[in-house]
Amino acid sequence: MRIAVCQTNPIIGDIDGNKEEIKRLYTLASGEGADLAVFPELSLLGYPPLDLVEKREFREYAEKASLELAEHTNSNTGLIFGSLHEDNDNIGTNIFNSAWFCHSGKVQLIQHKTLIPNYDVFDEMRYFESAKETFVVEFKGRNLGISICEDIWNDKDYWKIRLYPEDPIEKLMKKGANLLINISASPYSYGKREEKHEMLSRLAMKYDADLVYTGCAGAQTDLIFDGASMCYNRKGELLGLGAFFREDFFLIDTESKASSIHPIERDFAEEVHDALELGIKDYCRKLNFKKVLVGLSGGMDSALVVYLAVKALGAENVMAVLMPSQYSSGGSITDSVKLAENLKINYKTISIEPVFQSVTDVLQPAFEGKAADITEENLQSRIRGLYLMALSNKFGYLLLTTGNKSEIATGYATLYGDMCGALAVIGDLYKTDVYRVAEIINRDEEIIPREIIEKEPSAELRHNQKDSDSLPVYETLDKILKMYLEENKELNEIGELTGDPQLVRRVLSMVDRNEFKRKQAAPVLRVSYKAFGYGRRYPIVQKWSRK
Amino acid sequence: MRIAVCQTNPIIGDIDGNKEEIKRLYTLASGEGADLAVFPELSLLGYPPLDLVEKREFREYAEKASLELAEHTNSNTGLIFGSLHEDNDNIGTNIFNSAWFCHSGKVQLIQHKTLIPNYDVFDEMRYFESAKETFVVEFKGRNLGISICEDIWNDKDYWKIRLYPEDPIEKLMKKGANLLINISASPYSYGKREEKHEMLSRLAMKYDADLVYTGCAGAQTDLIFDGASMCYNRKGELLGLGAFFREDFFLIDTESKASSIHPIERDFAEEVHDALELGIKDYCRKLNFKKVLVGLSGGMDSALVVYLAVKALGAENVMAVLMPSQYSSGGSITDSVKLAENLKINYKTISIEPVFQSVTDVLQPAFEGKAADITEENLQSRIRGLYLMALSNKFGYLLLTTGNKSEIATGYATLYGDMCGALAVIGDLYKTDVYRVAEIINRDEEIIPREIIEKEPSAELRHNQKDSDSLPVYETLDKILKMYLEENKELNEIGELTGDPQLVRRVLSMVDRNEFKRKQAAPVLRVSYKAFGYGRRYPIVQKWSRK
Repeated sequence: MRIAVCQTNPIIGDIDGNKEEIKRLYTLASGEGADLAVFPELSLLGYPPLDLVEKREFREYAEKASLELAEHTNSNTGLIFGSLHEDNDNIGTNIFNSAWFCHSGKVQLIQHKTLIPNYDVFDEMRYFESAKETFVVEFKGRNLGISICEDIWNDKDYWKIRLYPEDPIEKLMKKGANLLINISASPYSYGKREEKHEMLSRLAMKYDADLVYTGCAGAQTDLIFDGASMCYNRKGELLGLGAFFREDFFLIDTESKASSIHPIERDFAEEVHDALELGIKDYCRKLNFKKVLVGLSGGMDSALVVYLAVKALGAENVMAVLMPSQYSSGGSITDSVKLAENLKINYKTISIEPVFQSVTDVLQPAFEGKAADITEENLQSRIRGLYLMALSNKFGYLLLTTGNKSEIATGYATLYGDMCGALAVIGDLYKTDVYRVAEIINRDEEIIPREIIEKEPSAELRHNQKDSDSLPVYETLDKILKMYLEENKELNEIGELTGDPQLVRRVLSMVDRNEFKRKQAAPVLRVSYKAFGYGRRYPIVQKWSRK
Repeated sequence: MRIAVCQTNPIIGDIDGNKEEIKRLYTLASGEGADLAVFPELSLLGYPPLDLVEKREFREYAEKASLELAEHTNSNTGLIFGSLHEDNDNIGTNIFNSAWFCHSGKVQLIQHKTLIPNYDVFDEMRYFESAKETFVVEFKGRNLGISICEDIWNDKDYWKIRLYPEDPIEKLMKKGANLLINISASPYSYGKREEKHEMLSRLAMKYDADLVYTGCAGAQTDLIFDGASMCYNRKGELLGLGAFFREDFFLIDTESKASSIHPIERDFAEEVHDALELGIKDYCRKLNFKKVLVGLSGGMDSALVVYLAVKALGAENVMAVLMPSQYSSGGSITDSVKLAENLKINYKTISIEPVFQSVTDVLQPAFEGKAADITEENLQSRIRGLYLMALSNKFGYLLLTTGNKSEIATGYATLYGDMCGALAVIGDLYKTDVYRVAEIINRDEEIIPREIIEKEPSAELRHNQKDSDSLPVYETLDKILKMYLEENKELNEIGELTGDPQLVRRVLSMVDRNEFKRKQAAPVLRVSYKAFGYGRRYPIVQKWSRK
């Protein structure tokens, strides 16, 4: 069977636009003699549609567009796309996350998703009911077993701990399926692609069935989808592989020879580089922003963000702003200028000194003689935020914020200051990871000046300040943070593993006490298993870490 | 049977503190001859504990504390409190939201919750599995049927549309229960108490059973719990009613005569007044903040917030800041001063003019001759934010933000400007509702100056600016917003109902376009069926409303 894998990048809620793209690729597939054209999960709606699903008019519009797509099909090429469907038994939400299988101008089968993920960034039980039944459908001599994303992630031979008692794939196989189609929208995190390949390959082998997995590409606010659709023969060998971090369209024949390609994840830095570039690009494109603005401090974080912005949008669409103060080292300015010149971007230099002076003069009586403290440090950061937002407003440029995961975790960032911005580009990269990505950027030529990479991290908000005055060294800090945030370990366990329970207690308390800042942070592009934002939900008011 | 209803106000994650409070009230109940002391849902952990539940050390600590509470019981008085419990079948989360029933130093029954809510502010399927079985337990001659919160909200005779196929209460009754105990943590929204009373009363009647419903009191960041525990005899008559918006402890005897009390919700303004006062009080108390700061604009919103802060924390703990500009009307200052004097609070007056001048001078070259626009309006708002945050930092006062629901909905607010602050006190009140609450405040004497109530709403960011320059009149706007936000109606339906589809399209598009601001907004105290924040989840990048 000849299958067209249509790895699209829908815009959430743009049902008309997504429908036209499905039509276009279906027509292309049909023209190339495909028996089947397969699109990702909820490809008509965009994933995740979140509470849009709760709107009746939205659902009706989606249903109508789905029927229109069915009418558009011919008898030579089957179409499988993702949309929703409703029943009306008056129990539950009555809404399903479904794969629509159509040909000959008609809907042939609407297969609902059985396993409804509801962890980390997934909230699907909020919207969708579980399928009551799975169906195998005969098409051109093959028995199709169609499933949706999570449905394929619960094999009892593969997983030691399973999330669900049921296994819809097993059911499909018992009903005689010999070609498994899984349509997905599975957010990227580093390490997941490799695991997915391993699991899918084994599944094809176990069931002696062809397997086509269609993923979507593109970024949806904070979530990044890496494409990487994978097709296997019944020996579990890879027949086809979609592009990484971009849309793709390709044909495979289930009877063809196995390819020599292998979907190995590249180096962490390379993967993350491409993921974040896509994250910036799609955020801007889907919201109709052409240009962005980045404040350059002379440090590593803003250097990486401005570089990624240039990769995503082009040098002509990126403006840098340098905002020195009395505490800026000489290098902060010269290094930033060198970076801007290397990247061929425009930059403006605007000192914060006159405004800092003016604010402190005006506030002096209100401060009632109190000594300088963190207030004055935050003020500097907030004046920079004020400048950046003013330029953003005046020129219609989107402001990117530059905080890294280590800072956001510990609250080593100023709310309404350096936290200003629409998108936290590297908010899911620990400081040590920021350097790893920087290294590959300079592989062929020095784009990020060595001085920036080599200088000791500093917020430069007081004389001779260093990050290490307030934080443990980043190697240690990041190890503790990773255990706490990604591995869900706690005080006692991390204390034992690091041998420094006092330090661990201090770090964990910093993380928990700063939940209020993260509540007001920009969306963070997600590249790890556990990012700040939607997939991590902690109460602001709580006392666990203070016990 | 003599039952002590223990309507507590736990702090999330403060397992030790909550445990001591349960012990204290259990001992009190036992001393007063109670047969049973009943506490709210997850009373040992605080509700909602969110992702704390995913931490193994947290769960183990909770289990240990639960067992300690069991050991503390004697044979005269049963104890029912809320905690979690784990099993280990290796499928699903293996964690349950449970009612622990203990006496004679032992755990007698751990009844898990059957119906796991996962809509609006509820995310429980993220953490908890559903009970596999319900048990009736005999105690002192009565058959107790214990259930947890949502379990009691699915009666097929009461609800036309049900969320779940099962009904654990029906099961308990079939197993011979004659005393129903429901332990709850059910966030307040206006109108809910009345409905709850109606439902519980009918249920007691239907099943000819006594019914004790224990709610918790207090605020947990954005969620407010109104207490209002309700006890019924088998005729559905009320025997006891907990205090509203505060902790309570009372005894009822299931054999006693019905009381003449009735848990009717009071006037909207009175209810909301008490709810918001509690919201401020608990946010500060549970985070160890004593004092708060409010910027007074001379308008109605900040007047209401500062009044509520005084009610919650006392005049001595509230500081007001007046920050006039060239666009401030004379009244803005004199009215604010009058308000501060009426409330007997300290205030500071700090002009934003010198800093505004300094910022615009410094930015002028960067602005490249572009005309004044929204940038300069936002700048004024952001300079005020800068002042307020500086004072907050310098004195350790918590900043309260003053935006109302109509503003937050339409984005008529400045990010990092007037949106600065730790808690959005009236962010769930439409502008028209703000006036309703103001009216009762002035019932006995003029606390909020009439001038403030009667002046036309204005942001005062340019000469003679009025809110009505940018927004429809609030009566119209709020009607549209309510249909959109709370009733989930959409473009076509609201267009038909209001007869002005063009205006509706404009308003809905404002709401959707401003999702990015709300992503970075302070937590909003929830008093309506659908508040901004945790219970409302929309993609920032989406095109539905732009279709």
